[in-house]
Amino acid sequence: MNHETKTAVTVIGLGLMGRALAGAFLKAGHPTTVWNRTASKADQLVAEGARPAATVAEAIEASPLTIICLTDYQAVHDLLDPCDLDGAMLVNLTSGDSAQARQAARWAAQRGARYLDGAIMAVPPAIGTDEAVILHSGPLADFESHEATLAALGTVTHLGTDHGLASLYDVAGLAMMWSVLNAWLQGTAMLRTAGVDAATYAPFAMQMAVGVAGWLPGYAEQIDSGAFPAEVSALETDARAMTHLIEESEALGVNAELPRLFKAMADRAIAAGHGGEQYPVLIDEFSRPGKAGTE
Amino acid sequence: MNHETKTAVTVIGLGLMGRALAGAFLKAGHPTTVWNRTASKADQLVAEGARPAATVAEAIEASPLTIICLTDYQAVHDLLDPCDLDGAMLVNLTSGDSAQARQAARWAAQRGARYLDGAIMAVPPAIGTDEAVILHSGPLADFESHEATLAALGTVTHLGTDHGLASLYDVAGLAMMWSVLNAWLQGTAMLRTAGVDAATYAPFAMQMAVGVAGWLPGYAEQIDSGAFPAEVSALETDARAMTHLIEESEALGVNAELPRLFKAMADRAIAAGHGGEQYPVLIDEFSRPGKAGTE
Repeated sequence: MNHETKTAVTVIGLGLMGRALAGAFLKAGHPTTVWNRTASKADQLVAEGARPAATVAEAIEASPLTIICLTDYQAVHDLLDPCDLDGAMLVNLTSGDSAQARQAARWAAQRGARYLDGAIMAVPPAIGTDEAVILHSGPLADFESHEATLAALGTVTHLGTDHGLASLYDVAGLAMMWSVLNAWLQGTAMLRTAGVDAATYAPFAMQMAVGVAGWLPGYAEQIDSGAFPAEVSALETDARAMTHLIEESEALGVNAELPRLFKAMADRAIAAGHGGEQYPVLIDEFSRPGKAGTE
Repeated sequence: MNHETKTAVTVIGLGLMGRALAGAFLKAGHPTTVWNRTASKADQLVAEGARPAATVAEAIEASPLTIICLTDYQAVHDLLDPCDLDGAMLVNLTSGDSAQARQAARWAAQRGARYLDGAIMAVPPAIGTDEAVILHSGPLADFESHEATLAALGTVTHLGTDHGLASLYDVAGLAMMWSVLNAWLQGTAMLRTAGVDAATYAPFAMQMAVGVAGWLPGYAEQIDSGAFPAEVSALETDARAMTHLIEESEALGVNAELPRLFKAMADRAIAAGHGGEQYPVLIDEFSRPGKAGTE
């Protein structure tokens, strides 16, 4: 690993995730400058070859690329506002919402900095492996200029020029994660009443999730075209089966809140006249706040 | 296709699904006897080679294997109670719950019939293809005796001897189906506010669902062992990210009911002292009815 052939990188913020990011850059041979409010958090990284910066300004000055991983966007502004950002390239991997990301992009532009917003779809131990998916949004040219360096962190993706996209994909992806886990827990709770252990049921749940995931691109065409012909089944058929799921859950004494919410949303779409259409017609219900009283 | 080499089969109930089942048996070369209350529903099948039975009793008598696909279990009892079932082999694919399946198994045993309960995880057009998954539960020997014949309908599986298992796996699988679809709709609704169309977002949602599905066997080990160390992340970290999802949904003006239910269940587990444990610890919440007021 010849440090001189790799782009120098700065990492600001050395929490659990920040330390993982800096460690991955070091491991990939990038000269790595680090800064943290509590300087001692850099000790292990410095022992591994990182260069500690005395101030945030010095840290940003040290490298052509600065990665930011702080608690929240307020911390980003508090720390970087006093610094000269002119000509800096910032990649902000701090967790936040899409409005904060877009606002930070405007702020960076006013300060003369280039800016990418990012979201880390991984836990710290996965950083530096292909399994760590890191989403980026903002100008494509800025992403492409630094893609090879960012790739030291994991599987890096550019979602589009809208700086809000990384955080939107992030929370949307988490919604999928919790949904798959909750559905699996619902099924596991039901099957355990019949003495089926979780390990026996898991492969079936996995197969089901993978199978349904494969329908999404086709179903997406219905949403984009705005037409929902019941090619596979009609929403009212789903609603009847939802009633079975609710009644079975109740009869078994397991939780029925998730099935009831599914049914409530389907019922609203049916009441709006969509019972004969296919499931993705529910996009209308998901695209507006819930009814008064339920939200 | 030499009809004489294949097991004869009877199909009772010729709704959309029943006709698909009988059609698949005919196509696979099984001598197929059919019966339906409204006899004209058999016309097309008879034109394709099915033998119409004048009565349910005659239909059951005609074949060593009888497939039942009626509206509900009450219809099964109403039609078959007057018949001599001694020595019959019944595979009941009628939709129902696990208690009905177990009760029907006892009823069949009292009448001298062998009985498998089944559930069809497919729409009628898929019947006869590998994509049609058909679940069976009841005595393994009875399933194995007729597996080759039942395989004409799709991918057939035996889940266990408990007759209630097919219907339990069925509704649990549907819960996964709706969950993946709803999570995808939630994400699609969010991304569309940023001008991202459904087709652009779908592959990401698909990849996320497939990735998380792969965790289930490992997470199942935590449930079976009853220990939930936070190897990947702690429930309270999930709960904080759920708050981001709720706030982002609200800010975008899309539905937030699903994220709120996720958070409510996580909060209950955290209140019960499980915030430092891993997500599958929620099995306790899924295994009991929701709190008063929410259910």
